Amino acid sequence: MSKRIDLHRRNLLKITELGASGLVLGGGARAATAYPAPTKVDTGSVEDGKVKFPNWRATADTPSGPPPAPLPPSERVGFAIVGLGRLSLEELLPAFAECKKARPVALVSGSPEKLKTVARQYGIPEKACYDYAGFDRIRDNPEIKAVYIVLPNAMHREFVERAAAAGKHVLCEKPMATSSADARAMVAACENAAVKLMIAYRIQYETYNRRLAKFVREKTFGRVVGMSATNVQTVAENGAEQWRHKHAMAGGGALPDIGLYCLNTARFLTGEEPVEVYAWSYAPPNDPRFASVEETVSFQLRFPSNFVANCLTSYGGRDDKHQRLNFERAVVDMPNAYSYVGQRMTVTSREGDATSRDEVVLKPKNQFAAEIDHMADCVLQDRKPRTPGEEGVQDHVLMEAIYESARTGAPVKLKAPDKLDAFRGPPLPEEG
Amino acid sequence: MSKRIDLHRRNLLKITELGASGLVLGGGARAATAYPAPTKVDTGSVEDGKVKFPNWRATADTPSGPPPAPLPPSERVGFAIVGLGRLSLEELLPAFAECKKARPVALVSGSPEKLKTVARQYGIPEKACYDYAGFDRIRDNPEIKAVYIVLPNAMHREFVERAAAAGKHVLCEKPMATSSADARAMVAACENAAVKLMIAYRIQYETYNRRLAKFVREKTFGRVVGMSATNVQTVAENGAEQWRHKHAMAGGGALPDIGLYCLNTARFLTGEEPVEVYAWSYAPPNDPRFASVEETVSFQLRFPSNFVANCLTSYGGRDDKHQRLNFERAVVDMPNAYSYVGQRMTVTSREGDATSRDEVVLKPKNQFAAEIDHMADCVLQDRKPRTPGEEGVQDHVLMEAIYESARTGAPVKLKAPDKLDAFRGPPLPEEG
Amino acid sequence: MSKRIDLHRRNLLKITELGASGLVLGGGARAATAYPAPTKVDTGSVEDGKVKFPNWRATADTPSGPPPAPLPPSERVGFAIVGLGRLSLEELLPAFAECKKARPVALVSGSPEKLKTVARQYGIPEKACYDYAGFDRIRDNPEIKAVYIVLPNAMHREFVERAAAAGKHVLCEKPMATSSADARAMVAACENAAVKLMIAYRIQYETYNRRLAKFVREKTFGRVVGMSATNVQTVAENGAEQWRHKHAMAGGGALPDIGLYCLNTARFLTGEEPVEVYAWSYAPPNDPRFASVEETVSFQLRFPSNFVANCLTSYGGRDDKHQRLNFERAVVDMPNAYSYVGQRMTVTSREGDATSRDEVVLKPKNQFAAEIDHMADCVLQDRKPRTPGEEGVQDHVLMEAIYESARTGAPVKLKAPDKLDAFRGPPLPEEG
Amino acid sequence: MSKRIDLHRRNLLKITELGASGLVLGGGARAATAYPAPTKVDTGSVEDGKVKFPNWRATADTPSGPPPAPLPPSERVGFAIVGLGRLSLEELLPAFAECKKARPVALVSGSPEKLKTVARQYGIPEKACYDYAGFDRIRDNPEIKAVYIVLPNAMHREFVERAAAAGKHVLCEKPMATSSADARAMVAACENAAVKLMIAYRIQYETYNRRLAKFVREKTFGRVVGMSATNVQTVAENGAEQWRHKHAMAGGGALPDIGLYCLNTARFLTGEEPVEVYAWSYAPPNDPRFASVEETVSFQLRFPSNFVANCLTSYGGRDDKHQRLNFERAVVDMPNAYSYVGQRMTVTSREGDATSRDEVVLKPKNQFAAEIDHMADCVLQDRKPRTPGEEGVQDHVLMEAIYESARTGAPVKLKAPDKLDAFRGPPLPEEG
Repeated sequence: MSKRIDLHRRNLLKITELGASGLVLGGGARAATAYPAPTKVDTGSVEDGKVKFPNWRATADTPSGPPPAPLPPSERVGFAIVGLGRLSLEELLPAFAECKKARPVALVSGSPEKLKTVARQYGIPEKACYDYAGFDRIRDNPEIKAVYIVLPNAMHREFVERAAAAGKHVLCEKPMATSSADARAMVAACENAAVKLMIAYRIQYETYNRRLAKFVREKTFGRVVGMSATNVQTVAENGAEQWRHKHAMAGGGALPDIGLYCLNTARFLTGEEPVEVYAWSYAPPNDPRFASVEETVSFQLRFPSNFVANCLTSYGGRDDKHQRLNFERAVVDMPNAYSYVGQRMTVTSREGDATSRDEVVLKPKNQFAAEIDHMADCVLQDRKPRTPGEEGVQDHVLMEAIYESARTGAPVKLKAPDKLDAFRGPPLPEEG
Repeated sequence: MSKRIDLHRRNLLKITELGASGLVLGGGARAATAYPAPTKVDTGSVEDGKVKFPNWRATADTPSGPPPAPLPPSERVGFAIVGLGRLSLEELLPAFAECKKARPVALVSGSPEKLKTVARQYGIPEKACYDYAGFDRIRDNPEIKAVYIVLPNAMHREFVERAAAAGKHVLCEKPMATSSADARAMVAACENAAVKLMIAYRIQYETYNRRLAKFVREKTFGRVVGMSATNVQTVAENGAEQWRHKHAMAGGGALPDIGLYCLNTARFLTGEEPVEVYAWSYAPPNDPRFASVEETVSFQLRFPSNFVANCLTSYGGRDDKHQRLNFERAVVDMPNAYSYVGQRMTVTSREGDATSRDEVVLKPKNQFAAEIDHMADCVLQDRKPRTPGEEGVQDHVLMEAIYESARTGAPVKLKAPDKLDAFRGPPLPEEG
Repeated sequence: MSKRIDLHRRNLLKITELGASGLVLGGGARAATAYPAPTKVDTGSVEDGKVKFPNWRATADTPSGPPPAPLPPSERVGFAIVGLGRLSLEELLPAFAECKKARPVALVSGSPEKLKTVARQYGIPEKACYDYAGFDRIRDNPEIKAVYIVLPNAMHREFVERAAAAGKHVLCEKPMATSSADARAMVAACENAAVKLMIAYRIQYETYNRRLAKFVREKTFGRVVGMSATNVQTVAENGAEQWRHKHAMAGGGALPDIGLYCLNTARFLTGEEPVEVYAWSYAPPNDPRFASVEETVSFQLRFPSNFVANCLTSYGGRDDKHQRLNFERAVVDMPNAYSYVGQRMTVTSREGDATSRDEVVLKPKNQFAAEIDHMADCVLQDRKPRTPGEEGVQDHVLMEAIYESARTGAPVKLKAPDKLDAFRGPPLPEEG
Repeated sequence: MSKRIDLHRRNLLKITELGASGLVLGGGARAATAYPAPTKVDTGSVEDGKVKFPNWRATADTPSGPPPAPLPPSERVGFAIVGLGRLSLEELLPAFAECKKARPVALVSGSPEKLKTVARQYGIPEKACYDYAGFDRIRDNPEIKAVYIVLPNAMHREFVERAAAAGKHVLCEKPMATSSADARAMVAACENAAVKLMIAYRIQYETYNRRLAKFVREKTFGRVVGMSATNVQTVAENGAEQWRHKHAMAGGGALPDIGLYCLNTARFLTGEEPVEVYAWSYAPPNDPRFASVEETVSFQLRFPSNFVANCLTSYGGRDDKHQRLNFERAVVDMPNAYSYVGQRMTVTSREGDATSRDEVVLKPKNQFAAEIDHMADCVLQDRKPRTPGEEGVQDHVLMEAIYESARTGAPVKLKAPDKLDAFRGPPLPEEG
């Protein structure tokens, strides 16, 4: 066998001799004519207005690409961002840069200083900046096709209604409102104005949760028996004055803010609606942060297929956004299911004599950008959003049942619709 | 204790009663005057042209933010992207969207179709599109402050020299060239033209690798004894005609393409330079893909501090970009150290009677954007890049030593400089 | 620096020269007198009847040892194993080999063939083998100090009572019985006979769960807000005739068999007792396996400190024994908390600007052996077991409340004792 | 659908009513005749002298069992443990308790105190305790069928030769000796005495490494391109007097002690033998622990199939026993490949559009017990051990080549045998 190796060494020798000759050529005195001809190396072709490259890896590697094919800026749906709080500045405006079909064209804020600063950073012209009083003037800005409402919960209804009145499509942050009654009014307002209304349930656009929904719905691992879902995070000790701690502004405490992810995702994963909820709630006495809103809610959701979801939400513990599903033939764990980034998914199942704890790693995608692009797509294609206002109304109905159960100490029964995805628009087209 | 619980239940009752009253208010007939006053909820302030928010979490949670504060588009450094291959389309152009100091303002390609398509997607005007022959006209476009060379290796020298001649700063993909002689010529050309030259060693700008370098240099876990580094991926079976398989275009096989990451990162982590290299190389006989370039190189680098790095690079196995460092008091493992995204880092050490396998999760950041922004920052601040041309020259010197060792079967000794980071510019300023 | 390296090379040279001279000595013709003197290499000393070795690792490594110091076989507590089912053969008899204070001295089974086979395998003399009818003759075997009852649940009471009547201490598998009334009768029988009664709650003796209890009780990560606990596994499709599916033999379905782990561990981790339980239960219609026992129970336990545990147990999904605790400053995840082997524990918390997902790896220990040795120790030291009969009674009281809630659809309130660990014996002595 | 649920609730009701009636029966006054008939619950049957149980789980769960079927103590192979150091006391004597075919029947030590203490703990009679001078008297003890040599390396030859002369089979710890010459003499001595000689390469009997060897040999993931292997641990700062730091006693430093695992496992996984080795070695100057032995060796092994293994061993860093294999279609990582317990294995490969990082969890097994039982089995079946003396000789030949390369600074070529597993006995029979 040593003979074969010598061959390789000779082979190698040849290679490095070529390299050596390259060194000779490569001196400082090399003539311009020695440059290799560049055109030969251009690969890729254009089809349907998109660049495509041949796969250059063997089948053992996941192919990269295709390259993103963003719409030209001028053809994208222009959004006005309403509210320049943390979420807008830390997540949404950066996410717009990753969008392919949307772009920010206007800003709305009550703070002239923030307006000016942020507009400058993102190249928004001064005339496309509005304060809350002047918000209705967006009607006159044809670049604005849609608004993204990122305000405290109690303000959602007003601004959705004003946006609809201005003839703009609306993407509204969750929770949609502070009551199902307000939520219904918002749906009605948008219907009357013939504008689209979408609630920003980003998890329904997030890659890993979508894959998990596919597992559930296609029964990849058989029937799903139960789920545990947790959404917990801390709040500042001196935060009592923050609007999230005022019932009038927030509509509740941990539940509408973060527990809603457990509730909405349990519904989204199965497509079913709960027929019974039971809840227990807790607010630490004498803590001004929890004078009008709860700290913790533990709730159980029971679904028609006898799938049961146990959920915990709290402002009393460190960040945790975990969900785990028990299937007939597998367990799926997502340690940070509802985080802004960094989702992971492990599927545990039997593999012969072994247990397979398979971390399924998917190509990451900005979930905010996916959500915004979906709204843009619905505007461009005149389609109903996957998570329309009705989806948000249903969550308010359920949160009201949860609060009722917590108050009375008894489970609350609910009537379930007789079809899956009863409150949703059509499924997302296969991603291209 | 049940008394205290009753208290909570009463407490809760109060909360939901508030909620209930909210329900009453929230009817469809609610008057506009009932809208909550929005200005009170605006938080955050502007300092030094940046928006700042108070921390709203308790200390148990990592604070989010601060929000990105991008430079206004008009103040950013304009780049011409030279070469519209896979990397440019799949990674770099999308990464520019995440930059804060740079923006793409021109494109260069040999394919008129790709030029037109991509320019449209990214809003680049037609007049800022160049073919290779017309490249030198970039001189006349004042929006172009810098070029990013993303061409086959053998073309780097020509286009760096032409860019320098056009008075533009240069960011050049790795490997810098196909020989140390060419690399030196490129440094000289940029010096003569008084333009900056940076090599796109993205790992030196990647968050996790930078944290690891900090561990090494600050001796967080004591002396570092050794490292194993792997960069392996497959190539298409029918890929023989791809430029990467032509020695004249690529300057080598797996080594300059992907093995370079092992080499450069070992140097970067320690700041030292190798004093001895030993290598073995392999090309499968009768495989047209490896007629002029190697498939596999295994090489050992020995450093003055007696740190030793064992490296493996190959086109013969599925994707693997792993590095592991053995410290005096810890082991650090990075399963995908050189990937475009998704770096992870685990630190194993003793914690009393337990072994701690601590995954250190850092806030993710687009490494391409970080690299491009660094170049932009150097242009704006007139600073030498952290990874200047000299850094690339040194890698070529070392790759030539690796090839020599593989050819002769004997280790090659090298003279090490007498200081750390001998070929690098000043460290990155603390990130803000 | 190359000088220093040469020094090492010389150093090395010296070493390998020594090696070379060793080679000379090592020839086949070496005289016996050349053997090195062995006595010099004996390390370790004997203290208090135990061998001790000096630590031979630096502080960065967890020290091994000390070596186990088993009691001489003749001084160990002799056990009769009552029931030769799966658990006895697959887990308990092998675990006895890892005990330091206990040993199997007798077997009891209704199958003469199994008795004979197993006795032979484990070196148990024929005269120490009993059938169920002859069980009471254990009274006459002085080697038997204790019995380990490993029978179907409904048989526990009888055999505990008969063992007590025979004057033997009793270790009884969980669930203790099929009703709290039976359980109380068993406690009374053992009290009357002045023998010890311990319930085999192995998780209370398992290393990782004990560490977690320490975290909870010492408030290492602050207050514990909530817990989710899952114990799910499948049952054979044709298993309807198995005793576990007969209510009369098992006392219930998934709940007493596996859900009990969630219940008992929630109690053990905190030391508190639930003040309210709510449950929902499910049995698939027309499935003969679930004609008299339930398949699935989802239950919520609320504790005086407002700690809440959401639990799911089912025979309808693949194996899952997961628990997750939400603390004020950390999240603790145990993916296989109740497994026979292979526990893992991850503590997620903040570490400066990073999130630390720290897997805490402890020295593994056979949990069955730990449990059995504890019982042996209690016999030898005349101490009350940590998990006495009273601990088992309380679980039956709670399971009856869970079934009641599932039946009525309303939560059941319970009176909690006014101290921690109200039904437990003294804590385990620090392990040596 | 609510109808179906009501059905369940009724179903449940029935169940708990049964439970309730159980409660009535379960009072303290229950008559003995109420006890359920126990014989009906006895499952399992005896076949070929082994107990078998039907599978009671559905196919989604890995079946447990079959139960271990140990040989009766009197039929097991009796071992004399020679040397009562750390390994014997902390690992081997406890491991014997998990053996099915072997048992300890005699002890040999230079320390009368340790002999007496350990003999008492493990029930070894005083007459079966020997000191080194009296070792040859084992000849007269017919219970001793084999000896397990657990002495400092330089003493192996003497005691193997004396054991062979006493007519006992020999299991000898690794490294086999301190030179290939000694090793060859040991093989010859055992051949002459017609006793078996096995070297205690526990990793070749360890479950995960055996599975990995299967992957390599069956080409489950295609060709294996390369491997990186690390075995590093610390030594006490004041340990210079320890025999491991004396070249005359140990034959080397980190290499024969721990680096040997990298070497032997690379050979075992592939079945091939290296054709070239290159090494670099380091001993910190002025450190009395490394006056005659090396601290660190980095070595590269090249195999006929062009598989290359990069290995690092050192006494200078915290515990690390890692190996990683690069296959054509997968990467296999074992973070603690050579540890006494706790092996893990992750297989990374492509799964459609996802990357699968699959942790393969196998049923754990005591690797020391597996190794000892293999030796016992070879004695009982008169078979050549899988890792006979020849396997150990070859490692010494290779370690001498490694030291030579480190000394001369040049690679050392070796002649490879023309078949796989050239120095090994027959493969292990399929485990049952």
